[in-house]
Amino acid sequence: MLMGSLGSCRPVLVVCIVLILSLIRASEVAGAPKGHFYKWEVEYMFWSPDGVENVVMGINGRFPGPTIRARAGDIIHVELHNKLHTEGVVIHWHGIRQLGTPWADGTAAISQCVINPGETFSYRFTVDRAGTYFYHGHYGMQRSAGLYGTLVVDVAEGEKEPFHYAGEFDLLLSDWWHKSVHQQEVGLSSNPLRWIGEAQSLLINGRGQYNCSLYSKNAQNDCNIKGGEQYAPYILHVLPNTTYRIRIASTTSLASLNFAIGGHKMLVVEADGNYVMPFMTNSLDIYSGESYSVLITTNQKPNNYWISAGVIGREPQTNQALTILNYKPISASKLPKLPPPATPQWNDTDRSKAFSNKVLAHMNTPKPPKNYDRRVILLNTQNKLNGLTKWAINNVSLSLPATPYLGSMRYGLHGAFDQANPPENYPQDYDLMNPPVNPNTTIGNGVYKFGFKTTVDVILQNANTLSNVSEVHPWHLHGHDFWVLAYGEGKFTNKDEKKFNLKNPPYKNTAVVFPHGWTALRFVADNPGVWAFHCHIEPHLHMGMGVVFAEGIERLGEIPHQALACGLTGTSFMDTNKH
Amino acid sequence: MLMGSLGSCRPVLVVCIVLILSLIRASEVAGAPKGHFYKWEVEYMFWSPDGVENVVMGINGRFPGPTIRARAGDIIHVELHNKLHTEGVVIHWHGIRQLGTPWADGTAAISQCVINPGETFSYRFTVDRAGTYFYHGHYGMQRSAGLYGTLVVDVAEGEKEPFHYAGEFDLLLSDWWHKSVHQQEVGLSSNPLRWIGEAQSLLINGRGQYNCSLYSKNAQNDCNIKGGEQYAPYILHVLPNTTYRIRIASTTSLASLNFAIGGHKMLVVEADGNYVMPFMTNSLDIYSGESYSVLITTNQKPNNYWISAGVIGREPQTNQALTILNYKPISASKLPKLPPPATPQWNDTDRSKAFSNKVLAHMNTPKPPKNYDRRVILLNTQNKLNGLTKWAINNVSLSLPATPYLGSMRYGLHGAFDQANPPENYPQDYDLMNPPVNPNTTIGNGVYKFGFKTTVDVILQNANTLSNVSEVHPWHLHGHDFWVLAYGEGKFTNKDEKKFNLKNPPYKNTAVVFPHGWTALRFVADNPGVWAFHCHIEPHLHMGMGVVFAEGIERLGEIPHQALACGLTGTSFMDTNKH
Repeated sequence: MLMGSLGSCRPVLVVCIVLILSLIRASEVAGAPKGHFYKWEVEYMFWSPDGVENVVMGINGRFPGPTIRARAGDIIHVELHNKLHTEGVVIHWHGIRQLGTPWADGTAAISQCVINPGETFSYRFTVDRAGTYFYHGHYGMQRSAGLYGTLVVDVAEGEKEPFHYAGEFDLLLSDWWHKSVHQQEVGLSSNPLRWIGEAQSLLINGRGQYNCSLYSKNAQNDCNIKGGEQYAPYILHVLPNTTYRIRIASTTSLASLNFAIGGHKMLVVEADGNYVMPFMTNSLDIYSGESYSVLITTNQKPNNYWISAGVIGREPQTNQALTILNYKPISASKLPKLPPPATPQWNDTDRSKAFSNKVLAHMNTPKPPKNYDRRVILLNTQNKLNGLTKWAINNVSLSLPATPYLGSMRYGLHGAFDQANPPENYPQDYDLMNPPVNPNTTIGNGVYKFGFKTTVDVILQNANTLSNVSEVHPWHLHGHDFWVLAYGEGKFTNKDEKKFNLKNPPYKNTAVVFPHGWTALRFVADNPGVWAFHCHIEPHLHMGMGVVFAEGIERLGEIPHQALACGLTGTSFMDTNKH
Repeated sequence: MLMGSLGSCRPVLVVCIVLILSLIRASEVAGAPKGHFYKWEVEYMFWSPDGVENVVMGINGRFPGPTIRARAGDIIHVELHNKLHTEGVVIHWHGIRQLGTPWADGTAAISQCVINPGETFSYRFTVDRAGTYFYHGHYGMQRSAGLYGTLVVDVAEGEKEPFHYAGEFDLLLSDWWHKSVHQQEVGLSSNPLRWIGEAQSLLINGRGQYNCSLYSKNAQNDCNIKGGEQYAPYILHVLPNTTYRIRIASTTSLASLNFAIGGHKMLVVEADGNYVMPFMTNSLDIYSGESYSVLITTNQKPNNYWISAGVIGREPQTNQALTILNYKPISASKLPKLPPPATPQWNDTDRSKAFSNKVLAHMNTPKPPKNYDRRVILLNTQNKLNGLTKWAINNVSLSLPATPYLGSMRYGLHGAFDQANPPENYPQDYDLMNPPVNPNTTIGNGVYKFGFKTTVDVILQNANTLSNVSEVHPWHLHGHDFWVLAYGEGKFTNKDEKKFNLKNPPYKNTAVVFPHGWTALRFVADNPGVWAFHCHIEPHLHMGMGVVFAEGIERLGEIPHQALACGLTGTSFMDTNKH
């Protein structure tokens, strides 16, 4: 670990010496932060996530990438080497707030220059808080290409969770297309739009089944799994009468999911790295970008039970993901007696809202400030731009600049992005219930700049699309958690403030905005950096559905030179006489 | 043009002002060098090169890219904007020597940092000599993805070609796979190797036919071309009794081709941008990286005639490319009476050698120095590296560094690549007729450094592959032409010098080494820069079949900062206090 830290210390030697000394000192203290050093190589490889061989973006020859496991307060150090042939790469540590390390957020064009083929970049950051997280690519549609994995932070040594369990399983949910992301990207940038369509398969820990089914009802297409296949399900082997924690995170490209375990209720205890007021449920809605922990007790008849994840929010054309909860010592290959849990009606928004409204903060969670300093209303619309289909926020479709914001803002390179402030509201007469009268949008990359430590309200306002429906959008904020003050219907007005839950709103990093509705969020802009806030549906972000927030730029420290070596920051600071 | 030049002038303001002034002055002089300014955008798009829709790398929405046409001495200025989503890009101007502009050679990791998505790079260079050239991607396998086009340089105003013709056609030959280059690249980096296989189609000016044939014999699969299709053939409409120049260049990924025109003999007059001693032929062998001009006279019975290009050097599994020589006013859709010219037997190496030996320099061509200063013998072998299949030169398989050589050598960054000189010969007891006893190779990226203006002999020595055959390899040198002194058989020894043609050897930039043979080249290292020398078969280069030459580094001028903004040159010279 120390050697790993040293390797990338050159740019800011003094800071590094201090860091090294402090690490040495820290390692002498019992229970001090521990360093976790990883050397990762990203490359494409042949893989069969669902029984159909394809090209997948893997790490160290594995898909999904390795699981990171640390304790709160530990330091994660990933040396990421790009073994792709022509593509840059970055990795975002989803849910980690990157306090003091905004350059390690892993967002291309925002926090850093991409790591070019043959180059290595050192991510070094503290995982400040226990919880269930994951990591994934944040460049083009590389997340959809398979660049993701699980990141679990346990409580610091000597600390305790507010609940008990004897064992744990970590499930990362994703969706998978047989068409390459390169083809998907071209389709999204085509006129007329060629939509990516629905996923071929849903995956649990990178494993799904496309041409066959684990479920006996479809025995004609039985998978005949032997266990060693790349698409063999990840089975949860349990002992009877035992309590388990199941961590569930969703890094889907598109799908909103409903997760259930046949014959077992789940006690929801954590969401997005924060404890919640525990509640029982038969099934769990999980949107892309969210994570949950549930507790289950294996108090049912010893048997096998189906675990399922199915599509909600869009008309499903993809089979449920299935795996097995296996009571030991019963054979895991014995088919469950109960059928797989039925996924709820995809368009039962009332049910989905009822679920989301059950998620409330645990009593020890930080409380929101009673008042806000600034309120930004963000209208989500589908639009046209020179014949291309785009998503826009207050009629601006995000097109990221060639120079990452963190460097250009830190050093005041005003030519790097739109200097005008993006709009904070939309016209009062906009008809949310119909497609835009004038569907044309503009593109832009301006930044919402917040005073340091101001309290910001964000109202996400949904509307109709060009095809006259309204979709589900899970919005994810980098660098912060926010309080979800309310989910509402129709057009948000200031009168809706009375619906805000200021007592125990859930503290999350991802929140959904329901069809034809609004979602009110509040956060404190107390983390110096530049932060993406965007729909976590990958093709939606690719089509412009995001904004950029910034705060405390004047407080930013050094940024590793490699994170600056592109675009205007790459050329403006170059002094070839230096050598 | 002037505005375009100004746009990228910031880095070296003084040089730029001088340049601008000289351009203004030049434009006042009749017959002075003319500037040609192009704004190009590279992006993937859906296209049907052979009737099967695929994703193709295009320029300004076209495939192949736009044709550049200039006069000798003109200045070409291409502002290349990268609209790809996650891939860098560069463009190499094949056959242009880049005298004084080595940074504009467009070779990733050698002459410049790749242009990242969203960035624009200005290529500005002089086309110093009339001839038939082309341009193409030189990063990963982007040439195979379709990134190429034609570049024709006419004689300077007031000058004359040493032959006459009334009209001209420019044909760019290529081969096309239905599998994406990303999949091809993964296969080439897999253990065991998944070879790309033979092309699905051969294309003439980006047009071929896969599922159908233009030729009546296969009428059941008639293409029913209406003329507007992207895969409709590029037809050569001619007047009777007229002489035409046909420029033919090959940017194939793999295929060596034989080109013929039914019922017409061709007079070969140019090869690789140099006039040759004219000779008549019924068909023309053309290897990837080569270009030729032929003259034909339309003195046959007015009719339509097949033009064909078929695979030689490998057992063909791809249909001939076909198009039509159409005598006006006959309808171009009337089928030729003669069948398409038969492609010669693919493995008739004697015939191929006989053709290559006919290519001799025109009398006005520069003559080779009588003696050489240094001789480098390069053994071409197929090898293994940790289970991967590689090509190696003197048992070193080229793996390009993350920092382009031009910058790292110019500024003496010794950590950027292997400092040891690569081997200049191979063990005397190596058995060329059998696969290597020990197939393991090493990887490396050392540089052959030549004294400025020294005369260098390069002996390309072929051998058997791991599957005990010997293949054809067309080697291409950047930044120079070389004299092809001889093609020989078996193992080259110093006694073979007596076979050298020092009187009128062809002056070319690409020369083939035949199976089990050797090819002797001579060039003068008089162009300061770092230059790739490699097999022009794209997957072979991708598997390591290349070396790097450098000379006159001490004479290098400024390099545009953008070409340096990556790797060690990107971070070492960064001074964020500069602003």
